[in-house]
Amino acid sequence: MSTSVQKPRGRQFFANPGPTNIPDSVLRALDRPSIDFHDPDFVEVYDEAFAGVKRVLQTQHHLFMYNASGHGAWEASLTNLLSPGDTILVLESGYFSEEWANMARAHGLDVRLLGCDWRRGVDLAQVRAALSDDALAVIKAVCVVHNETATGMMLPLDEIRAAIDAAKHPALFLVDTISSLGSLDFRMDEWKIDCVVGGSQKGLMLPTGVSFTGVSQKGLEAHARAKLPRFYFDWTLMAKRPQKSFIGTLPVNMFYGLRESIRLLEEEGLPNVFARHTRLAEATRRAVKAWAGNNGPQLFCTNPTRYSDSVTAIMMPEGYDADALRETARARFNVSLGGGLGVLRGKVFRIGHLGDLNEPMLLGALSAVEMSLRINHVPHGQGGVDAAMEFLAEG
Amino acid sequence: MSTSVQKPRGRQFFANPGPTNIPDSVLRALDRPSIDFHDPDFVEVYDEAFAGVKRVLQTQHHLFMYNASGHGAWEASLTNLLSPGDTILVLESGYFSEEWANMARAHGLDVRLLGCDWRRGVDLAQVRAALSDDALAVIKAVCVVHNETATGMMLPLDEIRAAIDAAKHPALFLVDTISSLGSLDFRMDEWKIDCVVGGSQKGLMLPTGVSFTGVSQKGLEAHARAKLPRFYFDWTLMAKRPQKSFIGTLPVNMFYGLRESIRLLEEEGLPNVFARHTRLAEATRRAVKAWAGNNGPQLFCTNPTRYSDSVTAIMMPEGYDADALRETARARFNVSLGGGLGVLRGKVFRIGHLGDLNEPMLLGALSAVEMSLRINHVPHGQGGVDAAMEFLAEG
Amino acid sequence: MSTSVQKPRGRQFFANPGPTNIPDSVLRALDRPSIDFHDPDFVEVYDEAFAGVKRVLQTQHHLFMYNASGHGAWEASLTNLLSPGDTILVLESGYFSEEWANMARAHGLDVRLLGCDWRRGVDLAQVRAALSDDALAVIKAVCVVHNETATGMMLPLDEIRAAIDAAKHPALFLVDTISSLGSLDFRMDEWKIDCVVGGSQKGLMLPTGVSFTGVSQKGLEAHARAKLPRFYFDWTLMAKRPQKSFIGTLPVNMFYGLRESIRLLEEEGLPNVFARHTRLAEATRRAVKAWAGNNGPQLFCTNPTRYSDSVTAIMMPEGYDADALRETARARFNVSLGGGLGVLRGKVFRIGHLGDLNEPMLLGALSAVEMSLRINHVPHGQGGVDAAMEFLAEG
Amino acid sequence: MSTSVQKPRGRQFFANPGPTNIPDSVLRALDRPSIDFHDPDFVEVYDEAFAGVKRVLQTQHHLFMYNASGHGAWEASLTNLLSPGDTILVLESGYFSEEWANMARAHGLDVRLLGCDWRRGVDLAQVRAALSDDALAVIKAVCVVHNETATGMMLPLDEIRAAIDAAKHPALFLVDTISSLGSLDFRMDEWKIDCVVGGSQKGLMLPTGVSFTGVSQKGLEAHARAKLPRFYFDWTLMAKRPQKSFIGTLPVNMFYGLRESIRLLEEEGLPNVFARHTRLAEATRRAVKAWAGNNGPQLFCTNPTRYSDSVTAIMMPEGYDADALRETARARFNVSLGGGLGVLRGKVFRIGHLGDLNEPMLLGALSAVEMSLRINHVPHGQGGVDAAMEFLAEG
Repeated sequence: MSTSVQKPRGRQFFANPGPTNIPDSVLRALDRPSIDFHDPDFVEVYDEAFAGVKRVLQTQHHLFMYNASGHGAWEASLTNLLSPGDTILVLESGYFSEEWANMARAHGLDVRLLGCDWRRGVDLAQVRAALSDDALAVIKAVCVVHNETATGMMLPLDEIRAAIDAAKHPALFLVDTISSLGSLDFRMDEWKIDCVVGGSQKGLMLPTGVSFTGVSQKGLEAHARAKLPRFYFDWTLMAKRPQKSFIGTLPVNMFYGLRESIRLLEEEGLPNVFARHTRLAEATRRAVKAWAGNNGPQLFCTNPTRYSDSVTAIMMPEGYDADALRETARARFNVSLGGGLGVLRGKVFRIGHLGDLNEPMLLGALSAVEMSLRINHVPHGQGGVDAAMEFLAEG
Repeated sequence: MSTSVQKPRGRQFFANPGPTNIPDSVLRALDRPSIDFHDPDFVEVYDEAFAGVKRVLQTQHHLFMYNASGHGAWEASLTNLLSPGDTILVLESGYFSEEWANMARAHGLDVRLLGCDWRRGVDLAQVRAALSDDALAVIKAVCVVHNETATGMMLPLDEIRAAIDAAKHPALFLVDTISSLGSLDFRMDEWKIDCVVGGSQKGLMLPTGVSFTGVSQKGLEAHARAKLPRFYFDWTLMAKRPQKSFIGTLPVNMFYGLRESIRLLEEEGLPNVFARHTRLAEATRRAVKAWAGNNGPQLFCTNPTRYSDSVTAIMMPEGYDADALRETARARFNVSLGGGLGVLRGKVFRIGHLGDLNEPMLLGALSAVEMSLRINHVPHGQGGVDAAMEFLAEG
Repeated sequence: MSTSVQKPRGRQFFANPGPTNIPDSVLRALDRPSIDFHDPDFVEVYDEAFAGVKRVLQTQHHLFMYNASGHGAWEASLTNLLSPGDTILVLESGYFSEEWANMARAHGLDVRLLGCDWRRGVDLAQVRAALSDDALAVIKAVCVVHNETATGMMLPLDEIRAAIDAAKHPALFLVDTISSLGSLDFRMDEWKIDCVVGGSQKGLMLPTGVSFTGVSQKGLEAHARAKLPRFYFDWTLMAKRPQKSFIGTLPVNMFYGLRESIRLLEEEGLPNVFARHTRLAEATRRAVKAWAGNNGPQLFCTNPTRYSDSVTAIMMPEGYDADALRETARARFNVSLGGGLGVLRGKVFRIGHLGDLNEPMLLGALSAVEMSLRINHVPHGQGGVDAAMEFLAEG
Repeated sequence: MSTSVQKPRGRQFFANPGPTNIPDSVLRALDRPSIDFHDPDFVEVYDEAFAGVKRVLQTQHHLFMYNASGHGAWEASLTNLLSPGDTILVLESGYFSEEWANMARAHGLDVRLLGCDWRRGVDLAQVRAALSDDALAVIKAVCVVHNETATGMMLPLDEIRAAIDAAKHPALFLVDTISSLGSLDFRMDEWKIDCVVGGSQKGLMLPTGVSFTGVSQKGLEAHARAKLPRFYFDWTLMAKRPQKSFIGTLPVNMFYGLRESIRLLEEEGLPNVFARHTRLAEATRRAVKAWAGNNGPQLFCTNPTRYSDSVTAIMMPEGYDADALRETARARFNVSLGGGLGVLRGKVFRIGHLGDLNEPMLLGALSAVEMSLRINHVPHGQGGVDAAMEFLAEG
């Protein structure tokens, strides 16, 4: 079973944006015998976890859960709200906005992609213009990835909401918060989001396996008219089941973990959680900016107002392979970095700094990056880890 | 958090047909930190688990896996193989054949249901007749639940295969093996099954969360022509992904558990696993037959050739509530029994005897049933547990 | 690593009197990273667990803990309270009273053994006589095993206390509550016990590894004069350490488990815990009494006032090997029964019914015994499990 | 249960020299149901673990194990080998040599302490002289702590052996390898050590709870004459028990963990394990040497030939409190550092770098130290983490 290659020792540093580090207390909560999902002991846990997710979403509205990854919840958001031939406006952000658009096309929707420079993000004036121009309200939904994991960019949901309102456009507002929920501030009700897509494996610090959609009242009304075929993800069917979610057997163990992860988030306090993410993200960016000297690697995102606080994508200097750097970090230092997705493969590596993370975990990972740059003879400025430490010691 | 009601002590006996008992070594394998699904250490585990599932399916063909419960894999089987308006023949067996049929209708398929007495199961001559009568081959697929969990009935797949062959019908043969795989003998290739649906949470002794479909070459050819919309479950998209399965983030932890559960099955040996299920099932039936005396509860399945060896459904005497009995077993003896599904609610209770089970686990559960019958003043014959012990001591 | 012999499947039934079943929530609490034993987070856990053990001992007095099994705490009780050449009176009960006496001799103490028929237990009139006869108070301590695990006999501590008081004897009262604490009622302060020896691995439902002594004020005064050499178990040294217990590194993980096990005991309520043990013990005895018919196995303890409610020892019919029976139960049914200790090896087997146990767990084990009797052709009366079920259904 | 103080998030960095980081696979191996220690399945695990410990000790000789911390094994080494009034020579190294000496005195032994400057360690010429001067061989044993955890100093066992041989002295050679075994090279047989004391909680990466002594043939012969009272730790009694070790119930779970930890050590290869410790220790020292500039903290050990590769003790500048620094690291960065022991309290802090450790784990901890120095306004040189990274990137 073992290979001739020396296995790295010690705990792996998981600086990958997904899945993320799972706290030990969550892993232990998951590690339990099966229970009937009708058992009153389970129902109590389920209800607590369910209510907790709504608090994290900052919503009073409806929640539907799936035994699926985030892509499944995307599918739920589209098939429950739309009908064949409907038009949607997808704000381009990177790999994941493309995936969502492709999924929409596969289900027979007409996708208008509002393009952008991936390093700067969409121009909100264009969003407003696209909606204002749509006098007949052909566009049924505006789809936005809150935090584009592939590029390390966050889109300002409040401003996008304002743009939709300014255009007085009736489109549904659909948001993917998979890599932001529980890490970045997200306010479903305040921002009048009609359908939000989230998953268990990022800021909720669980394994992959449960995803969900929060749905506004306006969303439910649209659902009543939506004609795309569906069953596994169908909200109407779910509403008739005892749990008001899930088609088929529930992943019961996940709810013990989910209850614990929400307890951890609320013990820390959501505002403190968000502040911690901002602090660790800024430390990461300071390190990268130091490395960027001497024609070194640099932040992929060049728009400071849209820096993501949960993941940083770093573009390698021309001619240097990001995956070779990642392999050095992994094989030699047991640090797992995220790779570039799609067209960015080999050009970009990513540091996930979300979820169950603290300063030395981040600095251990940054140290491994800095040593790997040196080992792989990648040109870079000195003092990345120093800059991060200096910032973190100030805080 | 605790209630005023006394919580039952000791380990819960989980005599519920799904999910099932998860062996400790599987739970421990699941209980591990996250890992990148591209990490070579993970790929090794993934490949081993993947190959193991194929051995359990007794197939050399294709396997696609989903982050979903069994209902998700059903959806995959339909949307990947069929086109809007296609006709399928569903062999009625109980609650789950109805669900599958309903799902097919939701996706725009035309369902012909071959009905039956739920206590005896479909007449194979009718199956053959239905196919022989379909000279134009309107029927694109024959859908069968191998083991109907709701009624405790097994359908003879080899004989159904023979009926299709006898009718020289080109329909695809779709089988749900969710509650039989890893418990009852199942031979995908020998029985020329074109698409088999399985899940993690029964005979594979894992939590709910991974389901899969094995697909024959003929199935893949049908897939190339199938036009139902799909993305999350789409095989063509999966084939392009590095893992050849899954859309979106993989549930990595599950594969560590899956590798371990397959190791356990193969350490015991699949024929021994099947024999153990038969032995424990027969002991259960002997107990029920003893209780059936004195107008007591009786086996729901009245067709001995179709007894299920993974779950037994037991019909209460008229006027006695199955759920009251289950509640006594749960609250007083910490034994979880399955309830009646759909129209059988309150009339039937079910004993799951599949997965990680041995004689004293079963006898402990049967004891709780026998004591609960007494406590609830349900008429019943004496000596159920005795009959089971007598049988098991012979073996 | 595996052998050619088929490994039994399913969960092992652990009907062994020590160690005992560990609840899953306790195992999960133990399963955690290391922590500095001076860390405030640990100190909080330590203090809670420490206080909890005192509540279970029903004492306001002093508690010293050891990283050792119960034998280590015995050694602590002797070396901290006595001086070379001191005389102690040991009430014979079986294997464990012999061990304790041997340990005393090894440490240079003079042991007077008050003998008895192991099946009936010591005569309290003899205890009183022995003390009344000791006008010079040569006897420094009276040593009693509360619950003799080897024979399934409980000694009445309140009556022994009364005998000491009646004799107006100043001897210290030392009690081993290893296999009774947390299972049978034990009242250190009410019964004026000067030193009680307990361990983690029985009624406290933990792994072996922590043992402890509760010590009265009179005990501490004796300690000040005690001259047996000691260091690892020395109370005076411990009192100077920050934790007031333990010499050397603390077994930190155990305290997380201990806190959880005490939470479980107190959630159920100690009186309920004791009543549960009595109920399950009586069911066991009813089964054995049924088997005793037809010259079958019988209760080793023939004194009903001294039946142990945590373990039952069962004597095989002449000419039948208890260990062969145990091996059948283990190899064929995955049930672990206790063997006979010392001179009782092969003649006696034991059923532990203490700790994390409920009705079906016990009945599963009793079923395995009954089937093994049949398989091994041991003469026995019918209906043991039936008798146990009948009793438990009444309760 | 929670306090008003913010709990640190993320995984704690445990840079404490004892206990140490426990690998997840070891924790999972420990997390299992009870088993009878006579069960053949357990015996197999026990035997494998037992043999593995002997390989790690590099011995063919006898091994006795205890359910106790390292202090218990010390007690075993003294009481099994010596008689009241015997003289032993203890080589001073720091806190732990003092403890061992104190224990010997408590057991009635006459201790000759060969003193030293704790920052430089004993002069081997004095060792040789002390033995040469003892023409009557009054000294029965020479006691040495291989690696003094309190001061971060390693003593050269091969040279001490040579000194004993050179003096032609018959004394037994007793060694404490608690904080070196599995981290530093240790060769019991080659160095002719008569009794070696080890524990589970350092290089063997287990919780505290099992300790042991390896004993040479010469040691066993001395044991036959040794008259100190003992029972719990008595080798003669142990040799009569089925397991040849342990008095009382075995801590069965520990053996599952021990087998796994030995598997991990041997998968990496002991020489690689030692080299990793040397590399990480040198990186630590480079960081400290950088901090030592500007009148900063410095290595406590000033004798480079005796640097410990498992723990580094660091002396604070005059007037700065080591414990305040540790509290900053703990409360703000969730990094646990070791404190000064005994007279070094407040003056010294310690970084444990042994066991399950890799580069980013160490660098995360060093980063926390460097930031804490800054936050607490402790004078120090710049570039500690940089120096460590530079060294580790070279390797």
